[in-house]
Amino acid sequence: MSTLARWQVSHQRSISYDIIATSALLDPANSSLLAAGRVDGGRRFVVVDEQVAGYHGAALESYFAQHGIDARIVHFSGGEAAKTVDAYLQLVRELDDFPIHRRDEPIIAIGGGVLTDVVGFVAGSYRRGVPHIKVPTTLMGYVDAAVGIKTGINFNGRKNRLGSFEPPLQVLLDRSFLTTLPLRHMLNGMCEILKLAVIKDAALFAQLEHHGAASIANAFQDGDGGVMLDRSISGMLEELQPNLFEDVLARSVDFGHTFSYGLEAHYTEHLLHGEAVLLDIAVSVLIARQRGLLDAAACERVFTLIGTLGIVPLVELLDIDLMWNALLDRVEHRNGSQHVPLPDGIGRCVFVNDITAAELSSAITLLRDRTTRKNEPVLEC
Amino acid sequence: MSTLARWQVSHQRSISYDIIATSALLDPANSSLLAAGRVDGGRRFVVVDEQVAGYHGAALESYFAQHGIDARIVHFSGGEAAKTVDAYLQLVRELDDFPIHRRDEPIIAIGGGVLTDVVGFVAGSYRRGVPHIKVPTTLMGYVDAAVGIKTGINFNGRKNRLGSFEPPLQVLLDRSFLTTLPLRHMLNGMCEILKLAVIKDAALFAQLEHHGAASIANAFQDGDGGVMLDRSISGMLEELQPNLFEDVLARSVDFGHTFSYGLEAHYTEHLLHGEAVLLDIAVSVLIARQRGLLDAAACERVFTLIGTLGIVPLVELLDIDLMWNALLDRVEHRNGSQHVPLPDGIGRCVFVNDITAAELSSAITLLRDRTTRKNEPVLEC
Repeated sequence: MSTLARWQVSHQRSISYDIIATSALLDPANSSLLAAGRVDGGRRFVVVDEQVAGYHGAALESYFAQHGIDARIVHFSGGEAAKTVDAYLQLVRELDDFPIHRRDEPIIAIGGGVLTDVVGFVAGSYRRGVPHIKVPTTLMGYVDAAVGIKTGINFNGRKNRLGSFEPPLQVLLDRSFLTTLPLRHMLNGMCEILKLAVIKDAALFAQLEHHGAASIANAFQDGDGGVMLDRSISGMLEELQPNLFEDVLARSVDFGHTFSYGLEAHYTEHLLHGEAVLLDIAVSVLIARQRGLLDAAACERVFTLIGTLGIVPLVELLDIDLMWNALLDRVEHRNGSQHVPLPDGIGRCVFVNDITAAELSSAITLLRDRTTRKNEPVLEC
Repeated sequence: MSTLARWQVSHQRSISYDIIATSALLDPANSSLLAAGRVDGGRRFVVVDEQVAGYHGAALESYFAQHGIDARIVHFSGGEAAKTVDAYLQLVRELDDFPIHRRDEPIIAIGGGVLTDVVGFVAGSYRRGVPHIKVPTTLMGYVDAAVGIKTGINFNGRKNRLGSFEPPLQVLLDRSFLTTLPLRHMLNGMCEILKLAVIKDAALFAQLEHHGAASIANAFQDGDGGVMLDRSISGMLEELQPNLFEDVLARSVDFGHTFSYGLEAHYTEHLLHGEAVLLDIAVSVLIARQRGLLDAAACERVFTLIGTLGIVPLVELLDIDLMWNALLDRVEHRNGSQHVPLPDGIGRCVFVNDITAAELSSAITLLRDRTTRKNEPVLEC
């Protein structure tokens, strides 16, 4: 064998983006929405969901007009059922029809988590990546979907089967968007805050116990609500930032995101993301309790908080086959190990790799029973 | 306005991959193909084109069997016409049907540039990214497509409209694959080597003048051929490595890749990538000549080399509208500027931003005339 060549290609990539809270985002006096792109006119491709279009469509048109920007405002139906290849490709066609510069005319995504996930994947794959700005208008987007860099669409009956890690150029937060959010979607986002509290933040858990219900009622517009929102985002970032590309596959923020995938992919039309996560949280807490990781008092505190917040596990949708198969898929996803986070106290977690189908089944039965007998004075934990 | 929160998310990502020349890659005694993944059994999802399947299918099956690997070998039709959303999604479905670990069971892509581009996009977007290994079996793949990190599929009548920057885990080179390459595909890859020589490497240009035709005839199996292959890859990497994610949009390796997009997207069935690039090179050289950037002798040297190598510009496919519109799209792609590299000598280039439709049209006419009158003793340069 003659001497054979070998090359090493090495590159350091710096990733940086800001998450910026602002107010009156669509007031033309506020230039936040344009600051990250070219300001000498130019174009913006803006994707909004039907709710945003309904409440803020006129304000958006006026905002860009007053800034001399040629904006194409595209409506996206939103909701888990819209997280499809077809919706993704349709956005790509609309982009082709409204050419934007590759670097200084960022796509702007204004809406819920599904919208920012899909538009993020469009941005991440169009011309191999163009910049995008995320403006979450739901609680789920605000504390979860818009904070990180994951994008995705569902495919072949599986959640987020296609997607990318695509850092946004910016995330702009304006919590006044939450004032028009329907209650079901408020509760949907609350499940992600609950997740974070249970698994890593006992102080946030206590805040939820004291102020959670009131914050839901006032759409997080008061001081306590603001504190909880900020704390949720800070907590998420503590977990995400050192592991932005998931080099480590044991992630505490995957709590509630193991068994939920099967339910969510199957009940696309019936189950919001947070509702699926809540079922997973409840089952996982009971698995932790069965294992003696969690004591009865801590277990009861979680279920009491769930009751206080008014978020209701839709136990009639629990399904051992869907949930067990979801775990098997997560094992591939987590490279051969379960890496399931389970709480071993409020605000703490451990990772386990040996959950059995029988154990899952027993926790499901326990949760069903508990809910059915919820008016009886039985301490199921 | 109360004090508003702001977070900065920062992350340094280290990217590194090796391009490794080897020989007898499919000899079970050579473990290169498996070394980057888990070696304790496990699975490999392998995508090969019909040519590879025909020549090496049995060797591949036997290779994995002897190493105790459960391999799923999937056939991909290959060719520009196969670079579609449907082909991409079909590979994703096949992956779902053959679950692989997310990290230590890399996808293996063995084939030409179209195949590695499509499989690279599959790998880059499946579960938001799983590792992949590229094994180019064509000259185009060997010196161009497999060397860098760009993946892509065509969509909506546009080349590589969807794709990603996805570093491979490894690139494995075995030039013996070139021995079964049809002449047209050999010439196809030669156009990329020519591109590199014209724009940045006068020594490579001279090597092509002296040994190019012989290397085509012996499928790059001799010493001169090996030197040219290595030099081409080294040259590509000199350009790619410092600008791996195209932070700088004026790229010398875009020579031949401006007007070609329109032709290639339109004549999907008739034009190989290198053939489109050759038309672009020829037109660009004539534009450079018309501008006085290139002197007559240098211009003539390029056309003489094209003749020597036996690569023939398919001038009947030249089309001013397709080519001009391709430039307009490249302007969006290059963020508002043409950034067209033009040679100002053999092995050098400058970037221009003011090419006009009239200038392009005139160069096209010149090229058509030149080719029609090729047996007449007229020095068109």
